[in-house]
Amino acid sequence: MIKVGILGYGNLGRGVEAAIKKNDDMELVAVYTRRDPSTLTIKTPTAAVKSTADLDTGKEELDILVICGGSATDLPEMTPKYAAMYNVIDSFDTHARVPEHFANVDKAAKSAGKVGIISCGWDPGMFSLNRVYAGAVLPDGQAYTFWGKGVSQGHSDAVRRIDGVLDARQYTIPVPEALERVRSGENPDLSTREKHLRECFVVAEEGADLARIENEIKTMPNYFADYDTTVHFIDAEEMKANHSGLPHGGSVIYSGTTSDGTKHVIEYSLNLDSNPEFTGSVLVAFARAAVRLNAEGASGAKTVFDIAPAYLCRESGEELRAHLL
Amino acid sequence: MIKVGILGYGNLGRGVEAAIKKNDDMELVAVYTRRDPSTLTIKTPTAAVKSTADLDTGKEELDILVICGGSATDLPEMTPKYAAMYNVIDSFDTHARVPEHFANVDKAAKSAGKVGIISCGWDPGMFSLNRVYAGAVLPDGQAYTFWGKGVSQGHSDAVRRIDGVLDARQYTIPVPEALERVRSGENPDLSTREKHLRECFVVAEEGADLARIENEIKTMPNYFADYDTTVHFIDAEEMKANHSGLPHGGSVIYSGTTSDGTKHVIEYSLNLDSNPEFTGSVLVAFARAAVRLNAEGASGAKTVFDIAPAYLCRESGEELRAHLL
Repeated sequence: MIKVGILGYGNLGRGVEAAIKKNDDMELVAVYTRRDPSTLTIKTPTAAVKSTADLDTGKEELDILVICGGSATDLPEMTPKYAAMYNVIDSFDTHARVPEHFANVDKAAKSAGKVGIISCGWDPGMFSLNRVYAGAVLPDGQAYTFWGKGVSQGHSDAVRRIDGVLDARQYTIPVPEALERVRSGENPDLSTREKHLRECFVVAEEGADLARIENEIKTMPNYFADYDTTVHFIDAEEMKANHSGLPHGGSVIYSGTTSDGTKHVIEYSLNLDSNPEFTGSVLVAFARAAVRLNAEGASGAKTVFDIAPAYLCRESGEELRAHLL
Repeated sequence: MIKVGILGYGNLGRGVEAAIKKNDDMELVAVYTRRDPSTLTIKTPTAAVKSTADLDTGKEELDILVICGGSATDLPEMTPKYAAMYNVIDSFDTHARVPEHFANVDKAAKSAGKVGIISCGWDPGMFSLNRVYAGAVLPDGQAYTFWGKGVSQGHSDAVRRIDGVLDARQYTIPVPEALERVRSGENPDLSTREKHLRECFVVAEEGADLARIENEIKTMPNYFADYDTTVHFIDAEEMKANHSGLPHGGSVIYSGTTSDGTKHVIEYSLNLDSNPEFTGSVLVAFARAAVRLNAEGASGAKTVFDIAPAYLCRESGEELRAHLL
């Protein structure tokens, strides 16, 4: 059994816990929290709830620690720190800071003889893999990534921070015409606005100035200003009834040519009922790979690009070749 | 520059040649043929046309040999033979004989200190990768593979062998309702007939008994008897005008659950103008991986499951992380 620890018990931590239940070669040993452990109830009766202080001893009996923190401040600190003690994996997704994060984790993991996988999930993660495979097979081509339809938690949070907003949910939606043009192999140049729409559902305080809120959303730099955005005001009941899930998904579409006029289109798409449960499932599969690689003597930082697919699987090479090749 | 040899110059050999032109770190050194080399004209002016007898010396200066033979009789003999002399790669696709072929190539390649990649292309190949990744991420799920719409060369050949048939093209077509049911996450049980249709375009000899030909096609065991098949008789001109390409493609659709009622659907689909040019492109990307693995000291037989994606790419790890993660 692979002994797994989870650091952080938000949506993603619970998604990892759900994923572990689906893999009978893995067991959840403990959830580590910065909160008072006695206040936390988890869904795995056989696992402990512990404080991060226990983790900091470096003495927890874990084959791997899945670090479920935020990319802005948690992971840049936590992943290198714990890579110096345990095999670790995270879902770091601040693109511009990947080189720095990789270097920090690499240094810590190498000196401890541990493996640290960073930026694992679906994007970065499965989408990245598909960009790389497609680009390697069809070097004369172009990749397009579309996200959605799905809930963007970052954009939902941004709307919630507006004065007078009680709750908000933001859906990112690919523009159907853009999808069709890319699937046709046309290789169009698409602006930000041409690729995605944004749709917001907002619960406002009673008496709030709805026109002001709508305007603040639509003109918000980086988040909304470059997109066509629609805003719907709803009540808390409707929010709960129709928008309580965290569905997501999207597509990586790659089109390329191999000779004059000979085109090929590769599409990888995800349709996910729960973003955190799917992300957790990817983390758990790669956690298995990290443990195996480390058992073979590997150490240092890795990404999904560095890991042969067979390492993700419980099946032996013989079984994979016999049944899945 | 990676020095590549191609053994066999049929559709696939020409596809590999086209793919090499798209990769500026690779050069085609020679095409090896069992025919009289003087009868063969290739599209790469800088490459030689040589006899397989030259290859048999084991002295050709090649980083890798791409073996473009048939799976029935050529590859089981050729791939182990040349794996004892060169790094090799093939597209062996006789599923039931993969374990035997892998063992033979492994033995030859290991004793020579070479790498031999077998069963590389899109199915087996890219589709296999997607079955493995999806199954690893969502162990509680099911994979469905659909082929087409596209030309099946094996089925076209089978129709051509019928008495009175001058030429034939067979298209394999997924049943739209089956695709929709699988995409919905329903996980249906589908019979062979429910998954694919077969459509044949046939040029018959003048005066041939068309009803007999149609009946022979539709009742042919293994190839057609288990499918709904339609047969169209056309003339040679229409065949040339509308059916001279070798388009193909298909989808691997995987649906699985991570908790009660929480479903996820992963779909990988290919829409290929030219089956042999795409297959050749996959072979060339993995040929690069074989050469690199061998340079690092690896030897023996490998499949797509055993190769980390970064090995397929010209870009460095830093570049991949910065631009594609």
